[in-house]
Amino acid sequence: MSTPARRGRRPGSPDTRAGILAEARALFSVQGYAGTSVRAIAAAASVDAALVHHYFGTKDELFLAALELPVDPRRLLAPLIEQGPDGVAERFLATFLAAWDDPELRPSLLAVARGVMDPAGSKLLSEGFLPVVIQPIGVALGLDRSEHRMTLVASQVAGIILLRYVLAVEPLASMPADLVVATYAPTLQRYFTDPLP
Amino acid sequence: MSTPARRGRRPGSPDTRAGILAEARALFSVQGYAGTSVRAIAAAASVDAALVHHYFGTKDELFLAALELPVDPRRLLAPLIEQGPDGVAERFLATFLAAWDDPELRPSLLAVARGVMDPAGSKLLSEGFLPVVIQPIGVALGLDRSEHRMTLVASQVAGIILLRYVLAVEPLASMPADLVVATYAPTLQRYFTDPLP
Repeated sequence: MSTPARRGRRPGSPDTRAGILAEARALFSVQGYAGTSVRAIAAAASVDAALVHHYFGTKDELFLAALELPVDPRRLLAPLIEQGPDGVAERFLATFLAAWDDPELRPSLLAVARGVMDPAGSKLLSEGFLPVVIQPIGVALGLDRSEHRMTLVASQVAGIILLRYVLAVEPLASMPADLVVATYAPTLQRYFTDPLP
Repeated sequence: MSTPARRGRRPGSPDTRAGILAEARALFSVQGYAGTSVRAIAAAASVDAALVHHYFGTKDELFLAALELPVDPRRLLAPLIEQGPDGVAERFLATFLAAWDDPELRPSLLAVARGVMDPAGSKLLSEGFLPVVIQPIGVALGLDRSEHRMTLVASQVAGIILLRYVLAVEPLASMPADLVVATYAPTLQRYFTDPLP
């Protein structure tokens, strides 16, 4: 009786899992990724921290699960990182657009974008998605001034998401994906690898 | 007695003016700039259209008044447009940052940015601010593919506003203005004037 994990079926039920996710999302939103511990999420969900790890793995994985992304961005991005910094902008944009332009994925991605861009106290983007998903790309590529560079990349990608997908501003909203890649690749490649002031 | 302007003080009262602005903002938010007529705003505010023009001038000016910007962006941008497309990106960024980094202006600009970026049905950015303030810059500069180019400019500037000001993501949030200008000027100058795919 000492840990909730021993209280019969309930800890393993879909309700328990959903409850952990809901508490995780609420805490990450308000306190950011770094300011939220797995222990605090477990306490808020009235379960043991070990149960949280059992269901969701690491804190990074719990964070991504809480975002409810339709795809794991780290799995999508791994192949393009393996090929190194040369031409990474074009590969990054092609991968990014393939996900966003997929009619099965776009509704969920839009929902996530609306959530993380919501400035009403949300720290999901600035203190969650950026350090967990975006910043590791620069580290894995071995970039100099990696945090600086990846923040510049994020500032252009966020604008593309906002104008092309969230607000559907023309002519960007209807532009063919290959033209979007060709248009923005020089910008992003400069942010990734070129000398910067 | 035939026009509201003749009903004593009331039409000219601060309440009437505020009422027109509130109705203008509500209609522009939902229907966009093009989809909202001065006549519809006047009807919603229960005043004559002539009174709206009397207080606010053109529909463009009413739109900007409804945004409640602390500065008129067209007045700020006019001098840099007069100097032509050469080096316009650097002048544009310096002007933009001087306004946003002014501690007297930033709170109001943040409030506006939060309003126009709010994806919950707001058309203030996509169908208001862009055609009224941003697109005319490209036209005044005589750019080829002006709408295309200014949308790209907007996609980078929106990302800077979101990351540097709204979400305060480091290291961008604390970067000195001259470094921000030097960092983004090559990107914007390419969008303004260079050959594009």
